[in-house]
Amino acid sequence: MTREKLELVEVSPRDGLQNEPDIVSTENKLALIDAIVAAGFKRLEAASFVNPKKVPQMADGDAVFEAIRKREDYRNGEVTFIALALNLRGVERALAAGAKEINYVFCASDGFSIRNNGAPVEETFRIWPTVAAVARDAGARLSATVSTAFGCPFDGEVAVERVAAVAEMCAHQEIFELAIADTIGVAAPSDVRERLRAVKAVVPPHIQLRAHFHNTRNTALANAVAAVEEGVRVLDGSLAGIGGCPFAPGAAGNVPTEDLLYMFNRMGFDTGVDLDRAVAAAKFIGGVLGRVTPGMVSRAPKWPSAAQ
Amino acid sequence: MTREKLELVEVSPRDGLQNEPDIVSTENKLALIDAIVAAGFKRLEAASFVNPKKVPQMADGDAVFEAIRKREDYRNGEVTFIALALNLRGVERALAAGAKEINYVFCASDGFSIRNNGAPVEETFRIWPTVAAVARDAGARLSATVSTAFGCPFDGEVAVERVAAVAEMCAHQEIFELAIADTIGVAAPSDVRERLRAVKAVVPPHIQLRAHFHNTRNTALANAVAAVEEGVRVLDGSLAGIGGCPFAPGAAGNVPTEDLLYMFNRMGFDTGVDLDRAVAAAKFIGGVLGRVTPGMVSRAPKWPSAAQ
Repeated sequence: MTREKLELVEVSPRDGLQNEPDIVSTENKLALIDAIVAAGFKRLEAASFVNPKKVPQMADGDAVFEAIRKREDYRNGEVTFIALALNLRGVERALAAGAKEINYVFCASDGFSIRNNGAPVEETFRIWPTVAAVARDAGARLSATVSTAFGCPFDGEVAVERVAAVAEMCAHQEIFELAIADTIGVAAPSDVRERLRAVKAVVPPHIQLRAHFHNTRNTALANAVAAVEEGVRVLDGSLAGIGGCPFAPGAAGNVPTEDLLYMFNRMGFDTGVDLDRAVAAAKFIGGVLGRVTPGMVSRAPKWPSAAQ
Repeated sequence: MTREKLELVEVSPRDGLQNEPDIVSTENKLALIDAIVAAGFKRLEAASFVNPKKVPQMADGDAVFEAIRKREDYRNGEVTFIALALNLRGVERALAAGAKEINYVFCASDGFSIRNNGAPVEETFRIWPTVAAVARDAGARLSATVSTAFGCPFDGEVAVERVAAVAEMCAHQEIFELAIADTIGVAAPSDVRERLRAVKAVVPPHIQLRAHFHNTRNTALANAVAAVEEGVRVLDGSLAGIGGCPFAPGAAGNVPTEDLLYMFNRMGFDTGVDLDRAVAAAKFIGGVLGRVTPGMVSRAPKWPSAAQ
């Protein structure tokens, strides 16, 4: 029986670490990236190119990509290292650092857009044709993310029509992939189904869909299943579930990749990722951060096993 | 629009507490039960009647039911307080204590059955006609649980045919409900669908199905959605997610009821339970235990809210 493919994009080096108050050394970030690649991931978010005053944890994006450029798997295209950007300056920095894939982030809500991207949503799209042209000229492939697609920490609920409208604006430029992000972890599976259907109705079918969930309210794995049942075959995860507020004990962040992997393995999907090595990578980053991380499979007895 | 009904059975006073090494006072158990009823739950597992040497936390089951017998909501049948038993002696004790609903537990695997019920699976069914007769004569309604229905900590994987066969044996006596339990939290949604379909094929349709999940590997909410999509309308939950091993920091136990409630509220189901009060009850029991509990919604900002 051929197992159906499911791509897991590992975001711990970027979304997982960005809120950590203690700066993780570039060396440890690269060790994490090595562990991710060793586990079999073929795509990962390596760094973001954003204001280092706002996100000091990402100030070494250039150094991370400089080290990545020396990697064999990067040169021959076996593994893709994604650079995240929020504006043209970030895209230019990412390309100068050698990034071959850019993920450009928009927001579905003005409240978050003003704080995250520096302007209301519509305004942030003015530069979009330029961004796309710059990426294309540099030979980098481009994806877009619609963040706060399920709710905004400032504006509250976000209408599904709004998400579809922003997704459609993203698709006005040449992107190969569109990600829908539950930035604050409020979605239920019904929201996922509704929003993905609305997005699919306005986005051309050649643009692949990707889903990004946070486990803030324990719904992320259920949401991931709903997304896959709606046809999504690219899911973000963050090893150990890092990416939440590090000051709230046990508070969840991104959906833990190893937990996604355990579940989708059992559901018969082929991710190409080795669970034991993913757990090892999750434990490595948990050790670097020096605290109990939210991922569950890393802390549970190995299964299946007749001798637990 | 009429919202579809979904019943949440609160099991924190029994399955949630039974592994706690420090004995929770009967007074605090009753305060928890009060908080559960105040939140709107109409059915809850109040205690088990098992060997007090093996489960000292449940040694006060008689005292708990003695207090329950004084309750107005018990006398007029508004709220059902379930007593769990594993053998005839337990059933007799539960009935003597005034329990009007008995949940009798079988296992799908011999390894767990020998340790939990004192005999291999087939042997434990010898007393089943007597148990059913005793409950019937006492005017108590009877449900059965198939534990380790998704995997056994001693025998490993459990075949779906085995689960169906044990479910069928349960249905040979007069039960109003059959629960399928993922005792060690290994299931994925595909397992849930497969096993529920197999059980539905052998159990008469007048017996309602109930599902019991543990969140050991972060899959419990996804499994709950799968169960509901397969037609199950009764789900167990444990407030604050208690019920795991208390020695493993942050390790999950039963699926947190307040997290189920948040998700199924958003999915349009009517449980009759107030989320704020459920969160208050979860925080109460977390305070009694004096530790961070696994439930997520209790620790997340209230949603929806425009001012988080």
